[in-house]
Amino acid sequence: MTRRFLIRLEYDGTNYCGWQRQANNRSVQELLETALRSLNNNQPVAVIGSGRTDSGVHALDQVAHFDLETNLTPETIRRALDAKIPKDIYVRECMEVDGQFHARFSAKRRTYIYQILLWTTVFQRDFAWYPGFNYDTELLDQCAGEVIGNHDFTRFCLTSTESESKVCTIFESEWKKGDSMLIYRITGNRFLHSMVRILVGTMMEVARGKYTTADFKNLLDKKNRSVQVYTAPAKGLFLYNVAY
Amino acid sequence: MTRRFLIRLEYDGTNYCGWQRQANNRSVQELLETALRSLNNNQPVAVIGSGRTDSGVHALDQVAHFDLETNLTPETIRRALDAKIPKDIYVRECMEVDGQFHARFSAKRRTYIYQILLWTTVFQRDFAWYPGFNYDTELLDQCAGEVIGNHDFTRFCLTSTESESKVCTIFESEWKKGDSMLIYRITGNRFLHSMVRILVGTMMEVARGKYTTADFKNLLDKKNRSVQVYTAPAKGLFLYNVAY
Repeated sequence: MTRRFLIRLEYDGTNYCGWQRQANNRSVQELLETALRSLNNNQPVAVIGSGRTDSGVHALDQVAHFDLETNLTPETIRRALDAKIPKDIYVRECMEVDGQFHARFSAKRRTYIYQILLWTTVFQRDFAWYPGFNYDTELLDQCAGEVIGNHDFTRFCLTSTESESKVCTIFESEWKKGDSMLIYRITGNRFLHSMVRILVGTMMEVARGKYTTADFKNLLDKKNRSVQVYTAPAKGLFLYNVAY
Repeated sequence: MTRRFLIRLEYDGTNYCGWQRQANNRSVQELLETALRSLNNNQPVAVIGSGRTDSGVHALDQVAHFDLETNLTPETIRRALDAKIPKDIYVRECMEVDGQFHARFSAKRRTYIYQILLWTTVFQRDFAWYPGFNYDTELLDQCAGEVIGNHDFTRFCLTSTESESKVCTIFESEWKKGDSMLIYRITGNRFLHSMVRILVGTMMEVARGKYTTADFKNLLDKKNRSVQVYTAPAKGLFLYNVAY
């Protein structure tokens, strides 16, 4: 009998082209699919993620699903899968779900975090961005507040983004200061390609005094085309949580 | 005029054979010495560290010194050096010191920390040990308390250790619980080869119920030869600070 399974996993995206399978590139999806073949009489298994992550972007709690004809328990599948993948991916949980569940379409909210280092340290070199310039964190807070609500994020995505609507609903958008980092946390119903990185990169341009918060607000309303957006490095970004 | 410089640096020891230069192996010392040659008319420069760290062991604040005939400012030297070494080493500070200063012999106290993960995470896979068994943290605290003071650490070093005296003075030895880790912190006047890793590994054997705290105490007094010591993995260990 074919059963549907959900997995929750974390990965260090440093050595991947991202979540999604690409020809001639090492993706998280491909490694999971290859590992699952061995539990499926060497037949292909499609693994559907909650969404893509780009090259160098990490996940603390990515969610995916797949179908398998098996009598194995979810925990046995989890262990078998985890044993077959590299050390920079960890499958934390596997559970059986209803055949209607879909990792991408059933997702209600997604949360990302972006880590900015307050000082250089080699131990975070792949997991946070050190901007190397002075900036005003109060301006970061002001920008973050503007992001909450429904906005057209046309200016905050790659121009190649194919989604018809560029409107996203943002429930949470705030900066918090940790011991050695500033951490931006954003929750929304959906995100466009590179959206969080462009939000962070452009907020930092405001915070260093290059633009005003009014410029930033106008970008959100798609009016201001004279202001250039900036993309923060991939390595600081983590898919933090997906809620169903 | 020959001047003496002190540097403070941090490094991710994952991809090194350790601090000390070894034939056919990549060491932190060798990379620093090679980088400094270019500031010394391509003549060799000897870099003396506060002490060795083993393969896979990290440093948050290693100290070293070297002599250089130069008119450059310490900050110019720091930048030039940092530009010539890989991203997993960072030279945080460079200052000129008295010709009597010696990174190893002038050191009064050294502090190490050892990180134990409370749960698995790929992001700490090279920087902490996840033991994967149950243990009693109260027993860890008891063992740590026994370590303070003057002890003969013969049983807590590699049998090949060449130091004549195995007596070290320990000023601080304690476990603290962080968000996702237990962190052991130990400060002493000197440390023998692998001493912190053997202390941690053996404390963990007590904490999981294999030995008693009395067994551990006897090891410290060198009486108990029936108890086997254990060495915790290198990746959890950090040289944390050197005080002069």
